Amino acid sequence: MTKTASGTPQWKKLFPILTWGAAYNRQDLGGDVTAAVIVTIMLIPQSLAYALLAGLPAEVGLYASILPLVAYAIFGTSRVLAVGPVAVVSLMSASALSSLGLESVSDYVAASAVLALMSGGLLVAMGALKLGVVANLLSHPVIAGFITASGLLIAVSQAKHILGIKASGHNLIEILGSLGQGLGQVNFVTLILGLGVLAFLFWLRLGLSDLLQGKFGLSKLAAGTIVRVGPVFAVFGTIALSWGLDLPALGVSVVGTVPTGLPPLGLPTLDSSVLTALIGPAVLITIIGYVESVSVAQTLAAKRRQKIDPNQELTALGAANIASALSGGYAVTGGFARSVVNFDAGARTPAAGALTAIGLTLAAIYLTPYLYFLPTATLAATIIVAVLSLVDLSILKTAWNYSRADFAAVFVTVVLTLLVGVETGVGAGVATSIALFLWKTSRPHVAEVGQVPGSQHFRNIDRHQVLTDPTLVTLRIDESLYFANARRMEELILDRVHRGAGQLRHVVLMCSAVNEIDLSALESLEAINHQLADLGVQLHLSEVKGPVMDRLKRSHFLDDLSGEVFLSQNCAYEKLTKDQKPDPS
Amino acid sequence: MTKTASGTPQWKKLFPILTWGAAYNRQDLGGDVTAAVIVTIMLIPQSLAYALLAGLPAEVGLYASILPLVAYAIFGTSRVLAVGPVAVVSLMSASALSSLGLESVSDYVAASAVLALMSGGLLVAMGALKLGVVANLLSHPVIAGFITASGLLIAVSQAKHILGIKASGHNLIEILGSLGQGLGQVNFVTLILGLGVLAFLFWLRLGLSDLLQGKFGLSKLAAGTIVRVGPVFAVFGTIALSWGLDLPALGVSVVGTVPTGLPPLGLPTLDSSVLTALIGPAVLITIIGYVESVSVAQTLAAKRRQKIDPNQELTALGAANIASALSGGYAVTGGFARSVVNFDAGARTPAAGALTAIGLTLAAIYLTPYLYFLPTATLAATIIVAVLSLVDLSILKTAWNYSRADFAAVFVTVVLTLLVGVETGVGAGVATSIALFLWKTSRPHVAEVGQVPGSQHFRNIDRHQVLTDPTLVTLRIDESLYFANARRMEELILDRVHRGAGQLRHVVLMCSAVNEIDLSALESLEAINHQLADLGVQLHLSEVKGPVMDRLKRSHFLDDLSGEVFLSQNCAYEKLTKDQKPDPS
Repeated sequence: MTKTASGTPQWKKLFPILTWGAAYNRQDLGGDVTAAVIVTIMLIPQSLAYALLAGLPAEVGLYASILPLVAYAIFGTSRVLAVGPVAVVSLMSASALSSLGLESVSDYVAASAVLALMSGGLLVAMGALKLGVVANLLSHPVIAGFITASGLLIAVSQAKHILGIKASGHNLIEILGSLGQGLGQVNFVTLILGLGVLAFLFWLRLGLSDLLQGKFGLSKLAAGTIVRVGPVFAVFGTIALSWGLDLPALGVSVVGTVPTGLPPLGLPTLDSSVLTALIGPAVLITIIGYVESVSVAQTLAAKRRQKIDPNQELTALGAANIASALSGGYAVTGGFARSVVNFDAGARTPAAGALTAIGLTLAAIYLTPYLYFLPTATLAATIIVAVLSLVDLSILKTAWNYSRADFAAVFVTVVLTLLVGVETGVGAGVATSIALFLWKTSRPHVAEVGQVPGSQHFRNIDRHQVLTDPTLVTLRIDESLYFANARRMEELILDRVHRGAGQLRHVVLMCSAVNEIDLSALESLEAINHQLADLGVQLHLSEVKGPVMDRLKRSHFLDDLSGEVFLSQNCAYEKLTKDQKPDPS
Repeated sequence: MTKTASGTPQWKKLFPILTWGAAYNRQDLGGDVTAAVIVTIMLIPQSLAYALLAGLPAEVGLYASILPLVAYAIFGTSRVLAVGPVAVVSLMSASALSSLGLESVSDYVAASAVLALMSGGLLVAMGALKLGVVANLLSHPVIAGFITASGLLIAVSQAKHILGIKASGHNLIEILGSLGQGLGQVNFVTLILGLGVLAFLFWLRLGLSDLLQGKFGLSKLAAGTIVRVGPVFAVFGTIALSWGLDLPALGVSVVGTVPTGLPPLGLPTLDSSVLTALIGPAVLITIIGYVESVSVAQTLAAKRRQKIDPNQELTALGAANIASALSGGYAVTGGFARSVVNFDAGARTPAAGALTAIGLTLAAIYLTPYLYFLPTATLAATIIVAVLSLVDLSILKTAWNYSRADFAAVFVTVVLTLLVGVETGVGAGVATSIALFLWKTSRPHVAEVGQVPGSQHFRNIDRHQVLTDPTLVTLRIDESLYFANARRMEELILDRVHRGAGQLRHVVLMCSAVNEIDLSALESLEAINHQLADLGVQLHLSEVKGPVMDRLKRSHFLDDLSGEVFLSQNCAYEKLTKDQKPDPS
């Protein structure tokens, strides 16, 4: 079923469009057009709303949904991924830019584009170097915690638009404090409108689908699609209301004048001082955006037994971001909700994305004059409803039940994202996961084993009835030996030898679960070997894996080893206890 | 043999002096006094020299060799470790303080004391929290590379005293550039004196021992001891020369007025802005100092079949540093050379350290007036000879031969320490080792295995003649499964399944080398399970370890698993291929 070519030349792999394009047929076109129409309708309010969330003029959201989609259609390996502005990346972009203290809107727009350009450059570079693996540093629980916390943060940050007040801040404390100060200035017309839209959108999500399926007998898919494109009705409804009742005169904030026409093309220009400040955020946006996008692409590909190429995805997302930066947009990535809609609506190839781009171009040309009266409260309500679906605190419970280390990483991520900000949150989450992994592997499980009677098996003496010999101690080390646990292993072994001092003559390290021995561990083994030799105890190894043995052979360790290396633990036990018996000492 | 109490109460473990003090006898006293006399003579020039290296007045070196030794005698668990100023920590202290731009000498002295106080506080806190494990992040090769590079840096930094010129800098480029600029002002009297002392000290190290053993028939131990205390002759000789020929009048730089008497007691005071700048360096000094000291203590303890307690060592070194800070000293730790001298000279208990402190107190009271004429070139020569013995570039070769990853970590450490500075060097070394460890474990060795004919063993199909079955693929994963390799494992398995598409019905993951499965990996396994189920392929596990299984039972994974968990790979193979055979599909 998979059409991703594995026998194709390297340059052709860079342009997946050549592969799927060559086989494009009328049936594909049908599916792609349907999907494109539905996704376009869904994207109009979303792209405007996410631009608002990113602190940008509404049209920037539309611009970010045109050329990036075309770029992805050329380079992308997912059949159905829909790229464009997404909530979390918009929040991160806003967080990075608002700290720069830019004064003019045009500088802010340029800085957003530069951020997208940097992120695009990084993605392309990572693609060329096949560094997609860097994204693996983000563990699932950290991502889940981060998305949940970001969703909460975004929802709270949008409350000001519903209340019709001014507020700002990068974390829960700042935003809530700022909202509290503004409570005296609440605009009740805005509030009523905002709550109305919120109620409508929640009903769309929670009630409409059942109604359509139940009363109107629609299929689940059709009902779901109507629900997804529903927000566009809120947009047109509130535009009509705002125009008819002249709500701006009542203090309701509206989108205002939106330039009509195609996005401006060209390189964004910016101060070099601003550039360096953007490098850190660009790295984080790149990694978070990539991970989110690849997860969505992989999940959907698997459903149709298709495959994506994670390294080519770097190139494709990089191209999309560069295209966005050069055409008046800002940072983009593959979005979950829109990709699912695209998938469900029957998109068959990335051409659906290119067709969506045409739809949004038409919107940018013909629809923008009507956006003047669109209340920002409507967009805020769209954002709130969209991001609340991202919030899933159950990850805390799942992680707690499964392991305290995973829980700690999620907890740190959630709490710091909420209380300090997105960059600190995700950075601390990654640092915590790495630190805990090092900590766990630095305290390996070490079992003293003995022979299961009548067998060649050796098991933990604390868990099983096994045979042991007072002249021999066998320790099974359940971890690769490396710098973080080398010293501990030294202590453990010497400790054990001190306890068995009298009769002990052999220590066997059973290495069946030792996947690596690094130079630190090698030096520790050498030290143990010498120290045991001083005590008249021989050191042996058993069940050393091939690659580990190959490496040991490159050192002096095997020459200096006081004992032997045994192929199996059973050989070691047989030989060493037999040696012992005739010896009267 | 070991006297470290394991049945003693917790509070008594905090004061090892109570244990060894209770058994103290006349024989111990004899050994300790001899050792103390020799170490005192050795420490006089060294402590002055290291103070110079740290950019401090000479007497600070003496002060740092009095109370810290007493504190260590009370809290330390090593019988023979000699604490005091050491070369690498002095260099790090100088590097941290010179960047502060302090103008007065008294501020500089106070800042050095504060650095020691912070480091002492950190050590005590780490001891209380049993965080000695943090030191494990410093791999052996990184330490070796760092010590070698620091030794070179120190030697080069002392060249200015031998040349009698002014120079400064924190890395090789800065120091060499600065030396180059000063070459016109070389003081030839200083140069001749400096080279003379250097030649004498090198002869002490390289020629004297053989001479004493050969011509005078001294034992190796006695000859070695004379060699170690030899530098004190250079000190007294050049003082006499400097005074007799009035060398200061010829432009030879001398130590000058040194306050006589006991060190001043009290808390150092400093600006709070300086305090925060010192936190980072304090952390590095703490870890480097601790690792150096514990390694020395452990090596020497093993030689006499004694044991040290790494966590109690944190407390002891912390107490020593706090004592140093409160008595006019600066950062101290256990030194290699002096501890070996102490050991060789027959020190039997930490009382030797306390007796050394008495010796140095006498020196601070009675000897300081004579130090006025001591040329700084003499001290510089002492430092150069001492640190060149630390330089051992062979670690680069050893690491290269053993593994490229270890080599990369050493190389980064050496190059950055030399070219940028000590803090960057050691920081980058640690970061590189961690990054490479994550990278290696993120690309685990995965072998497809088959049955060795007529046995219950399963081996790599690429390396052995084994039996396989087209309906069954068994993958042995030689690594713990965690966030950094979870996604890769997903890709590998799906890749393999896509290749075997037609007949494949079972995938078995053989987990004999999987020591952990974290939440990320669990979620990947769940995803694989679902994706394989969609393809009509069952997922099975075999040889899952006890602790890993315990954890899996806390999740839904085992309920959702399409296949089974087999105790042994053989059971899996027997059952799954037998199931298959009567089935005509």
